[in-house]
Amino acid sequence: MAAVKACKILITGANRGLGLEMVKQLSENSCPKHIFATCRDPDGPKSAALRELAKKHPNLITIIRLDADDPCSIKESAKKVGSLVGANGLNLLVNNAAIVANGTIQTSSVEDLKNTFNTNVIGPLLIIREYRPYLQIAAKASGTPGMSSKKAAIINISTVAASMTRMPPIYSHFQTLPYAVSKAGFNMLTVLAAEEVKTDEILCMALHPGWVKTDLGGRDATLEPNESVEGMLKVIGGLTEKQHGGFLDYTGATVTW
Amino acid sequence: MAAVKACKILITGANRGLGLEMVKQLSENSCPKHIFATCRDPDGPKSAALRELAKKHPNLITIIRLDADDPCSIKESAKKVGSLVGANGLNLLVNNAAIVANGTIQTSSVEDLKNTFNTNVIGPLLIIREYRPYLQIAAKASGTPGMSSKKAAIINISTVAASMTRMPPIYSHFQTLPYAVSKAGFNMLTVLAAEEVKTDEILCMALHPGWVKTDLGGRDATLEPNESVEGMLKVIGGLTEKQHGGFLDYTGATVTW
Ligand SMILES: NC(=O)c1ccc[n+]([C@@H]2O[C@H](COP(=O)([O-])OP(=O)(O)OC[C@H]3O[C@@H](n4cnc5c(N)ncnc54)[C@H](OP(=O)(O)O)[C@@H]3O)[C@@H](O)[C@H]2O)c1
Ligand SMILES: NC(=O)c1ccc[n+]([C@@H]2O[C@H](COP(=O)([O-])OP(=O)(O)OC[C@H]3O[C@@H](n4cnc5c(N)ncnc54)[C@H](OP(=O)(O)O)[C@@H]3O)[C@@H](O)[C@H]2O)c1
Repeated sequence: MAAVKACKILITGANRGLGLEMVKQLSENSCPKHIFATCRDPDGPKSAALRELAKKHPNLITIIRLDADDPCSIKESAKKVGSLVGANGLNLLVNNAAIVANGTIQTSSVEDLKNTFNTNVIGPLLIIREYRPYLQIAAKASGTPGMSSKKAAIINISTVAASMTRMPPIYSHFQTLPYAVSKAGFNMLTVLAAEEVKTDEILCMALHPGWVKTDLGGRDATLEPNESVEGMLKVIGGLTEKQHGGFLDYTGATVTW
Repeated sequence: MAAVKACKILITGANRGLGLEMVKQLSENSCPKHIFATCRDPDGPKSAALRELAKKHPNLITIIRLDADDPCSIKESAKKVGSLVGANGLNLLVNNAAIVANGTIQTSSVEDLKNTFNTNVIGPLLIIREYRPYLQIAAKASGTPGMSSKKAAIINISTVAASMTRMPPIYSHFQTLPYAVSKAGFNMLTVLAAEEVKTDEILCMALHPGWVKTDLGGRDATLEPNESVEGMLKVIGGLTEKQHGGFLDYTGATVTW
C-alpha cells in the first residue's frame, strides 16, 4: 500500500512503465490531493493507458506535457504546474523518465552517449531548476521542521547500473555503457542537488527500483511493476533527513556508490 | 623520481599542466623508449613549451595531434601511433586531457554540460577504443603474466570531484557541477573499460592527481605540478592487478567512489 502522504506530486515519464504504475498506486491512495502526470506526448498512442486512468480520476490526475529532451517544454510545464499548485506548492518531484541504450567501449555510438546524457542528466537538471521554486513554497508552507516527502522532496529514479561498485559484475550481462555512464552522472547530479536544496529543507535522494518487467527492464526481470512501486512508495513515505543525498533501493536498503 | 618502466607511452593534453609535467619527468627517466605527447594544436602558441621539450629529446618525444573532441583526429592519431609503435605495441595510455566548467543546478549552462561530457567522457571512450589494439599487442608481446603499467595499462586521470562521497562537502567551494557530473561518468567509463580489457590483461584504473597549481587547479591549489606528477608516476609504476578497476590518488591512497 502506498504510504506517501505528499499532497501535490509530479512524476515524469508517467505514461508507461514504473511512472504509470506510480500514478496508478498513488491515485488509489486517498491521501494525495493532486498528481501531475507528465509525459512527452499526452495525446499519442503511448499515453492511452494514462489518459484512461486520468479519466477515472479527473479531480486527482492532471496530464501535463513534459519532454525531458526539450528545455522549452520543461519551462512551459513548470509554468503550468506553478499556476495550478496554488499557495502550498509542490511536495514531491519524481524524476522517473529515462532512456536506455546498449553498447560497450567497442560498440557504443556517440549518438547514444549524447542522447542518454541529454535525457537522463540534462533533462532532470533543468526539471529540478524549474520546479525548485514550487518545492521551496511547499517546504515553507509545511510549517514543520526537518525533511520529508510529505513536506518537499526530489526523488531521482536511479539504478544499480549507476553504481561503480555494483555495475562491474553485472556488465557482462547488461552491456549498457551509455546508460550506466549517464546514470552515474545522474547520481552525481543528485548528490550536488541535495547540497544545493538542503538550506530549503527540500529532501533529495536517488532510488533504485529493482529489476522490473517494463519495456526498459525486459521480460527476464525479477519484479512486477506493482511490487517495485509498492516498495518505492513505502521508502519514499518513510524518508527523513537521514537519507538526504543518499542512494537506496525499493526495499529501503542502501546502495553503495 | 619517475618509477614508470613502460617503454611506449601516450599522454593526452600533453602541452601544458599535468600532461606536460608528465612528459618532462618521463623524458628525464632513462627507461621509456618513446613518449607520444599528444595535444590538439601542436603548432599553436599553447604548445610552445612542449615543442621546446621535444626539441631537447628528439629521439624520445613525438608530438602527435589529438583533439579529444574530434573523433576523426582520434582515429588519425591512432593510425599514426600504430605505425610508429612497432611490434611491441603501446604500453601506457594516459587519458589526461580534460576541461572544467563551473556552475550549479541553478547556473550551469546546457552548453557547458554537453562540452564537458564530450571532452571528458566521449573523447576518452573513443581514445580507448582506437588505441586498444596497440595495448593488446603490448600485453601479448610482454610475455609476462598478470597486469602492470610496464606491460599494458590505461590510466584515466580523474578527480575527487567525481566521487559521490568526496564531492558534497567540497561543492560549496568548488561549484563545478558540469565537471563533476562528467567526471563521475568518466569513472563509470573506467570501471566498465576495466571489465572489458581484463581478458586482454590490460590494467585500467582512475587516478586523482591531488589539487594542483595548473590553469585548471588554480593558484590556491596545495600542490606543485612536479609533486603531483612524481606521486602519480610512482603510483603508476607500482600498479598490479589489485588496483585494476580501482580509484587511487597521487599518494597511492584509495579514493572512495
Ligand atoms: N525497469 C527496470 O528494471 C529499471 C531498473 C533500474 C532503474 N530503472 C529506472 O526506472 C525509471 C523508469 O523506467 P521504466 O522501467 O519504467 O522504463 P520504461 O518502461 O522504458 O519507461 C520510460 C518512461 O520514460 C519516458 N521518457 C523517455 N524519454 C523521455 C523524454 N525525453 N521525455 C519524457 N519522458 C521520457 C517514456 O516515455 P515515452 O513513452 O514517451 O517513451 C516512459 O514513460 C527510469 O529512470 C529507469 O532508468 C528501471
Ligand atoms: N589541477 C588539479 O587540481 C586537478 C585536480 C583533479 C583532477 N585534475 C585532472 O588532471 C587532468 C589534467 O588537468 P590540468 O590541471 O593539467 O589541466 P590544465 O592545466 O587545464 O590542462 C588541460 C589539458 O587538457 C587539454 N585539453 C583540453 N581539451 C582538450 C581536447 N579537446 N583535446 C585535447 N586536449 C585537450 C589542454 O589542451 P589545450 O592547451 O589545447 O587547452 C591541456 O593540455 C585533467 O583530467 C583534470 O581533470 C586536475
